[in-house]
Formats: sequence, C-alpha cells, structure tokens
Amino acid sequence: MKSYRKELWFNIHQRMEFVNITANVEEALRESGIREGLCLVNAMHITASVFINDDERGLHHDYEVWLEKLAPHQPTSQYRHNVGEDNADAHMKRQIMGREVVVAVTRGGLDFGPWEQIFYGEFDGRRRKRVLVKIIGE
Amino acid sequence: MKSYRKELWFNIHQRMEFVNITANVEEALRESGIREGLCLVNAMHITASVFINDDERGLHHDYEVWLEKLAPHQPTSQYRHNVGEDNADAHMKRQIMGREVVVAVTRGGLDFGPWEQIFYGEFDGRRRKRVLVKIIGE
Amino acid sequence: MKSYRKELWFNIHQRMEFVNITANVEEALRESGIREGLCLVNAMHITASVFINDDERGLHHDYEVWLEKLAPHQPTSQYRHNVGEDNADAHMKRQIMGREVVVAVTRGGLDFGPWEQIFYGEFDGRRRKRVLVKIIGE
Repeated sequence: MKSYRKELWFNIHQRMEFVNITANVEEALRESGIREGLCLVNAMHITASVFINDDERGLHHDYEVWLEKLAPHQPTSQYRHNVGEDNADAHMKRQIMGREVVVAVTRGGLDFGPWEQIFYGEFDGRRRKRVLVKIIGE
Repeated sequence: MKSYRKELWFNIHQRMEFVNITANVEEALRESGIREGLCLVNAMHITASVFINDDERGLHHDYEVWLEKLAPHQPTSQYRHNVGEDNADAHMKRQIMGREVVVAVTRGGLDFGPWEQIFYGEFDGRRRKRVLVKIIGE
Repeated sequence: MKSYRKELWFNIHQRMEFVNITANVEEALRESGIREGLCLVNAMHITASVFINDDERGLHHDYEVWLEKLAPHQPTSQYRHNVGEDNADAHMKRQIMGREVVVAVTRGGLDFGPWEQIFYGEFDGRRRKRVLVKIIGE
C-alpha cells in the first residue's frame, strides 16, 4: 500500500467564499503515483468546509444567501461562542456543507460523475488556512 | 491491496424520493471478495445524496417535508442558479443529506449498527443517474 | 495492509449532548500499530453523529439551540415517524451534523489541524449506543 500527503494553503479575502480546488487535488494525485484507492480531502480548520458540487457562480451566490439564512452571522451576540470571537455562525455553516470528501481513485484519476468538482468553502476568512489531501492505494 | 468498483443506475420518477440500496452494496461487496477494508458509496450527481438512516416510511415523509422547509423548491425564481434550470433547491437538499458514506468492511460484511441502511436520495429526479461503489482492502 | 476495529460505548443521560472522543480514537490508533492510512469513526446508531469541531462549551450550547431551531423536538406530533416514538427530530439533527468522519493517519497520529477534535453527538440519549472505529493502512 502506498500513501501520499499534501497540504493546500489558502488566504481568502472575504468572510465567505468558495474556491474550486479540483485541479490541485488532481495534481496531488499525479504526484502520488497511486492508480487505485481512496482520496480524502478535508478542511484542517473548523470554520471551513470541503465539499463537492457544481462550479456555477449563480449557485454559489444562492449557497451564500441560504447559509446566511440558516445560520446568520448577525447579531453576533446571539451566540455564546462569540466571546472575543464573532465566528460562531461559521462553525454552523461548516457543519451543513461538511468537513471532508472521500473520492474514489480509479485508473489514476478522480472517479467523478459529469459535474462533480471539489470546493474549499471558507466561512471565516481573512487568514491563512489549510486543506489536507491524503491518498492511499496502489 | 484489492479494489473493486461498481456503478448502480437509477431512474426515479418523482422529483424527490429515497431508495434503499443496502442490498445492492452488499452484492458489490460479495463480488469484490474483500473481507477487511473500507467501502465508499457516493452519488455521482450533484443533486442527489447517499446517506445512512432508518428504512421507515413515516421518517422519509418527514425528511421530505423538512428538506422542503429548509430549502424550498418554490418560488424557483428566488435562486440565481435557476436560469434555464429549476433545481437550485436540489443542490441544497443534497448538502444537508450528504454526498457519500464510508462504511467499514469487517469479515466480509458491511459493519453496521442495528438499524443502519444505505439510501440513495434523489432531489431532482426523472432522469438516469448513478451511484459509485468503491471498495478497497484485502 | 493492516486493519483494526474497535467499538466505543456510551450511555448519555441527556437527550442531546456532545462528548469529546478524540483520546479514545487516539488510543485505538495506538493499539492498531498503523502508521499511515485512514481512520473511519462513525455512529452505529441513526439518531447520533460523529463530527469534528471545536471543544468549546459555548459553541456546544449554540449548536443545541441552533439544531433545535432547524429540527424542533416539539410538537412531536408534527412528525409521522413519531408513532410509538418521539425521536424523529433526532434523525434530522444527525443528518446536519453527519454520521461519520474520515481522518488521515500520518506517522502514527491523527493528522489534524490546530483545533480539530472528534465528538460523539447524541440526539436521543438515555440508552446504550456505540461508535465504530475502523482503521486501515500500514
């Protein structure tokens, strides 16, 4: 069994933003030399997500509006976590969008359906954060 | 290390429906010959889910009502994604229910608690869609 | 390839509560002797979650309030599942918080960002329930 590990770094300038990282994960997979196995991609921070969905700007706008409705940032005083912080809502948005994805690796590629793309979802940006790619297989 | 890959195909006649696919995944596991490892089951489409919960008709009805409340289909014009489409809500429902499950494989079986069953969750049906089963182990 | 399996048992005295199980998973990892691989941690029951977030008491209170708003327990009669049961809301809360996490194993440790901790999330407590830890690798 082979394994490969790589960190991807981000510094998002908005509070909330979605970044397509599919090409970065594909590059890590090529570097790994693994042909058959599983590829884990996870946020290493607890106010961010990694998820798979569509690379469509309108949808990303809709996600932002929807997440803000389900877990509003304001008023920040509604959350007990917000003592010296203002990011409680980001911890909730991340639970809806998820921490991680696991993708099948088949014949050296990410085994995807027609529209699947991997995104980093930031909910408390404006500082450096990381995503972990861990691939195991042969 | 062994690996095995299988696609399951669906054509759901409703917009939203849940289908128990546990027996299909167990069949794939038997075909794989793998006794110890991990089994990934994921929707290959971004308006569908794979999740684990109870095979109880009342609960599935409750899920439909609840998801419709959290991410309403109507009015479709509330979503920017809905230009030539009407399925933005399906992209949201799928995030709540999840893209994938990873199940332990132990002594040749899915290593489940007493009520765990695997479901395909369709949120934008009436066309052919796929689920991927990928098993790695020994 | 090596694999290791361990069950963790809980009997939570509240209906809803979050328990930090990071040390239990680290102990299972040491017992496994696995240095590189993947570690699956999943609830074996369908009204409970395993998730990764912050070990901060205020945030856990905020999660409870927020989940109760998104999927209220009362009135129990609003759910068709609640025939001889009263836990339909727990099946919904568990979908938001998730069934499982997959954690990278690197150099014999859980490959975590600075604040990542693993929690058992109980939404229908007051009876014995289990979490499964399954580790594969080398």
